Amino acid sequence: MNLILLHPEDFTGDREILLTGRRALHVREVHRAEPGRSLKVGLADGKTGTGIVMAWDGPDITMEVSLVDSPPAPLPVTLLLAMPRPKGFRRILQGAVTMGVKRIALFGAYRVEKSYWQSPWLEPEALREQVCLGLEQGGDTHLPEITLHPLFKPFVEDVVPLLSCNTSRLVADPGGVVFCPAKRAGPISLVIGPEGGFTPYELAALTGQGFTPVTLGPRILKTEQAVPAFLGRLIPP
Amino acid sequence: MNLILLHPEDFTGDREILLTGRRALHVREVHRAEPGRSLKVGLADGKTGTGIVMAWDGPDITMEVSLVDSPPAPLPVTLLLAMPRPKGFRRILQGAVTMGVKRIALFGAYRVEKSYWQSPWLEPEALREQVCLGLEQGGDTHLPEITLHPLFKPFVEDVVPLLSCNTSRLVADPGGVVFCPAKRAGPISLVIGPEGGFTPYELAALTGQGFTPVTLGPRILKTEQAVPAFLGRLIPP
Repeated sequence: MNLILLHPEDFTGDREILLTGRRALHVREVHRAEPGRSLKVGLADGKTGTGIVMAWDGPDITMEVSLVDSPPAPLPVTLLLAMPRPKGFRRILQGAVTMGVKRIALFGAYRVEKSYWQSPWLEPEALREQVCLGLEQGGDTHLPEITLHPLFKPFVEDVVPLLSCNTSRLVADPGGVVFCPAKRAGPISLVIGPEGGFTPYELAALTGQGFTPVTLGPRILKTEQAVPAFLGRLIPP
Repeated sequence: MNLILLHPEDFTGDREILLTGRRALHVREVHRAEPGRSLKVGLADGKTGTGIVMAWDGPDITMEVSLVDSPPAPLPVTLLLAMPRPKGFRRILQGAVTMGVKRIALFGAYRVEKSYWQSPWLEPEALREQVCLGLEQGGDTHLPEITLHPLFKPFVEDVVPLLSCNTSRLVADPGGVVFCPAKRAGPISLVIGPEGGFTPYELAALTGQGFTPVTLGPRILKTEQAVPAFLGRLIPP
């Protein structure tokens, strides 16, 4: 936790907050913060700053916070991600949030098993928890927007044109002839497909929407590597 | 498994192999390969090619293989990686191997817990298994060299100069002033530190050895994101 993410309901006064639950436990057991210690904090969708531990109140912690700094700039990438298998989903989502993605569209495809959509990790509360963990790791406060699109055809025909409007459009494809660029001016829409790959129809539907297949070489990466590997190239200096 | 990795002991004839255990199970249950089906194969440290399923023999599979192609070019990056916590270690190692790293030095640092070195995943047989899984994912055959260096001081003073000889030297550092380059001619040595970061002494020891601190921005990535994010930038087109 490189930043303690605060929510409006944590505030007990203008600058005083009461930290409870997981975050308080982390501050006690990982940061081992005694009263007087200063830690990095940030208000969800707001400013970052410092919080000084004032007192421990049983399992809870009182802090005095000062929120004056801006969070890091968002990564200008909209991530269109084929729904990963539940086993790796939380790690992949957290990782994308940590790297600063602010818009994530999870979509279905032929090689996305329908059962993945039953995952309890897709419940709004569960998604929000993973998002908060990703923001805390990245020292960020702005919650991303996450949308679910189980059906490929209406997604690619109706949603993708809106999501990718006025962006450079890239689709990760180990067979792509264009090597993934490392610098690109302006916002980008990046599609990462399922681990078994897209069907030819799916890839054609995306190229038909103006997406350029881009590769990182012939090696086929798991989703958990592909997401940070492509995002890493697209971070603007 | 994008390639079935073969070993000399699998061969029962010049071009005939008997596939057993995990790989045979995968071919049966994931590829669902009937006799006549052609699959991608490769000999450890050797050529790649195709294997045709000839017959099932109980749980084992007989294949006829033809090995005529070269595996993908290695990624010209030596990865010097602070020993990750055992929970993520296998995924991180597999991922680096999938991306084509051929030399990995795992090292200790102040914020690497000593207990990490007791991990059963560091046994030679366990390391080899993870390496094979990474190669199978990446469609590669060349096994990387992995070395363990629990003590930071002798590692940085005696081993790092040899490992990084005639390479560009980079150390991942969220506080670095140089943004990680995306293209660099020739081989690279990349250091990725522990999740808690390097101590000032450790970072100074590395910069003293000619390593430039490079950043991907202010966000602090977990090791499992940092490795593919930095490697992704360093893949040559």
